[in-house]
Amino acid sequence: MAMTAKRVILGLMLHGAGGNMNSWRHPSGPADASVNLGFYVDQARRAESAGFGFVFVADGLYINEKSIPHFLNRFEPLTILSALATTTSRIGLAGTVSTSYSDPFTIARQFASLDLISGGRAGWNVVTTPLEGSGRNYGRPHPDHALRYEIADEYLEVTQGLWDSWDDDAFPRDRESGTFFERDKLHRLDHKGRFFQVEGPLNIQRSAQGQPVIFQAGSSEDGVKLAGKYADAVFTHSPSLEETRAFRNQVRASAVAHGRTSDEVKVLPGIHPIVGGTREEAERKYEIVRDLVSLPDALAYLGRFFDHHDFAQYDPDAPFPELGTIGENSFRSTTDRIKREARDKGLTLGEAAREAATPRPNFLGSGEEVAETIVRWVEEGAADGFIVGFPVSAEGLEDFERHVVPALEARGVYDRALAEPTLRGNLGLSRKASRHRSPAEAAAPRVSA
Amino acid sequence: MAMTAKRVILGLMLHGAGGNMNSWRHPSGPADASVNLGFYVDQARRAESAGFGFVFVADGLYINEKSIPHFLNRFEPLTILSALATTTSRIGLAGTVSTSYSDPFTIARQFASLDLISGGRAGWNVVTTPLEGSGRNYGRPHPDHALRYEIADEYLEVTQGLWDSWDDDAFPRDRESGTFFERDKLHRLDHKGRFFQVEGPLNIQRSAQGQPVIFQAGSSEDGVKLAGKYADAVFTHSPSLEETRAFRNQVRASAVAHGRTSDEVKVLPGIHPIVGGTREEAERKYEIVRDLVSLPDALAYLGRFFDHHDFAQYDPDAPFPELGTIGENSFRSTTDRIKREARDKGLTLGEAAREAATPRPNFLGSGEEVAETIVRWVEEGAADGFIVGFPVSAEGLEDFERHVVPALEARGVYDRALAEPTLRGNLGLSRKASRHRSPAEAAAPRVSA
Repeated sequence: MAMTAKRVILGLMLHGAGGNMNSWRHPSGPADASVNLGFYVDQARRAESAGFGFVFVADGLYINEKSIPHFLNRFEPLTILSALATTTSRIGLAGTVSTSYSDPFTIARQFASLDLISGGRAGWNVVTTPLEGSGRNYGRPHPDHALRYEIADEYLEVTQGLWDSWDDDAFPRDRESGTFFERDKLHRLDHKGRFFQVEGPLNIQRSAQGQPVIFQAGSSEDGVKLAGKYADAVFTHSPSLEETRAFRNQVRASAVAHGRTSDEVKVLPGIHPIVGGTREEAERKYEIVRDLVSLPDALAYLGRFFDHHDFAQYDPDAPFPELGTIGENSFRSTTDRIKREARDKGLTLGEAAREAATPRPNFLGSGEEVAETIVRWVEEGAADGFIVGFPVSAEGLEDFERHVVPALEARGVYDRALAEPTLRGNLGLSRKASRHRSPAEAAAPRVSA
Repeated sequence: MAMTAKRVILGLMLHGAGGNMNSWRHPSGPADASVNLGFYVDQARRAESAGFGFVFVADGLYINEKSIPHFLNRFEPLTILSALATTTSRIGLAGTVSTSYSDPFTIARQFASLDLISGGRAGWNVVTTPLEGSGRNYGRPHPDHALRYEIADEYLEVTQGLWDSWDDDAFPRDRESGTFFERDKLHRLDHKGRFFQVEGPLNIQRSAQGQPVIFQAGSSEDGVKLAGKYADAVFTHSPSLEETRAFRNQVRASAVAHGRTSDEVKVLPGIHPIVGGTREEAERKYEIVRDLVSLPDALAYLGRFFDHHDFAQYDPDAPFPELGTIGENSFRSTTDRIKREARDKGLTLGEAAREAATPRPNFLGSGEEVAETIVRWVEEGAADGFIVGFPVSAEGLEDFERHVVPALEARGVYDRALAEPTLRGNLGLSRKASRHRSPAEAAAPRVSA
């Protein structure tokens, strides 16, 4: 595979002070980063000038007093992304919204509106919401894992259908003749399904990229199926090159099984780099980040994946406890991995908690070393690029821009000048054609705005 | 009533090319105004520099091929307001969201997030959604008028409760001690009601103005009750000074009946001024605007208030037809008024349609004349200010700024320099205290961000 032909895609996770649960204590950024507009704007602009293809805002719909600081108090994705749309110009704007606790007509509208506001830079990270508590904020029972994915499937069918309500050239807006729109270029959806009945049409036109980009973040079997059917990009774990490559191959095969080509879906593992001028400097930075988290904090962090299960009740020096079915309806792929690793490596509960809360990043080192690893993962088919979530946002992005970006550019696989003004362009994807246009028309779309 | 002591509040309706259904044909602005970000930013910035206290984005959840052009294709309120938050600095940002087709946890979050992003400038125009077709985009029956208001009442109780989830000083974020938040300043809602069960807490803090401002726009009896209980500002019609004063007195009495003071709710009639350097110039501008709309267009416009009833089937020169119950579950106060006026004035259907689609504004004339009328309405107790929706946005705002704003300033009732950085401040309202603080604490709030 020719290295030079392959552009590495990078996305920046915007998660307040950082991915480390106590990153707010790190002196490099503001302690209130998760609700600090200036900080978000600064991070997005730095990412844009460093050539990141998009920023990515994760989300959750339930907190309690045990939640990690960043989750307790943070911006809602659609509003902060819209605010960033007018303070950036080329970087993509992706965010999480749950299909289990929203209405497709509303979400189709909000993402379509963000897509127009940003000139074709919107991306929706489709999640089904893992945390059971979410149902208690919406007055309904949390659907089980399989049902959530059945709902998500129909939800996406509806949303993408609504996004094609108007052909690209539906609005001539001819003042002389008084023709604002052409009736035969308006398509009512009339969806009648198992979970949703949606008449349409949507009251907003298509964008410069056609439709918002679909990200998908669940790594379970149901998640891979959904990704193959609908996703333009998949956000996943990065336990090892081999495991991630196997996962990427599954996703690509799933796309083919759904009548798409394997290159229509980009697999973007989440990584958490710590970079220094030298490897030693990176190690020292990691130690500082690790020491932000105490053992009780780490146990609480672990509990978050298991429906806020109280791990403080166990001896931290004893083997990882037997949990039965606790957490099985939440972050399933994560909890399976935590339990498997604890068993395989013979970890105590305390070690497993520290491993979960402050894992040693597999992308740690000098800029050259991290760039080398990034290129290797892409060359060896484990990734099309990465969603980069720094343990400490402020210091992390600065170090990455200083040390890794030039090293990637020197390898000819990256260019900090974003060539494309749309998110699809930044991901190496074509404009999304409307389902109502013939292939010939779709190849040469006339855009009316 | 001392004129100089009373500041006239002005809000700008952002409705694309304008309130006239064919305003997109007017040459003063872009034909695609309703989806043109640059136009929205320009309008909001002009309004800010002209001293308007807020911009206001209305909304609807159902269109069909008969809808007026602006409704067919427009930005969604929360996303466009968030985009405007980072392109303006002091003007309030208010928008419509329906309590009949959304979830209180989500809407509480999105408005709270907009409120933080904008530094305390968010306002929510609470509507219950008049158009029956909306239900067909959400797969459920449209609730009747009374039920919609019962839902809205409980919805607001939940939302305002969620907004007080965190005390103002709940987040010390002390890096040394590791204290991110104080447990006793976190309040779970645990709401169990007729329509909603919401546990909480909300995952976002209070803002510089405490809570987003509540606008209420229904003028029916149920609407006045809801306004008296919850609203900070009421958006209403402006048929005449006397009728609007009577309505304002009802709203103020309703506030008192709900244990508030009458000055805690501002009544802001919607007006549609056409202003010229002279009265004659204003008349000519009106004629141009009126002639944008043909009789068939006017009949279609009228139909919009009556569930898209087809008025083209009747003789336009015959008296206004008998409609039975058509439209009673939608814009009830508007349809009652249209039918009453047609009967009282003996209008033909065609005349009633033109009157609905291109009414002669009661705020039409030179800058001095319009300023004079504005001041009179405020002095005589019909209004605390106005929501200004120009028939043609581009020309209208320019004329208003040039001719009316200086005339208001000369009368000592208006100042184009916005004194306050929050929407509540711009409305002459105090910061909203948390329900969990004693009155003494509330008087001197410590804000943690």
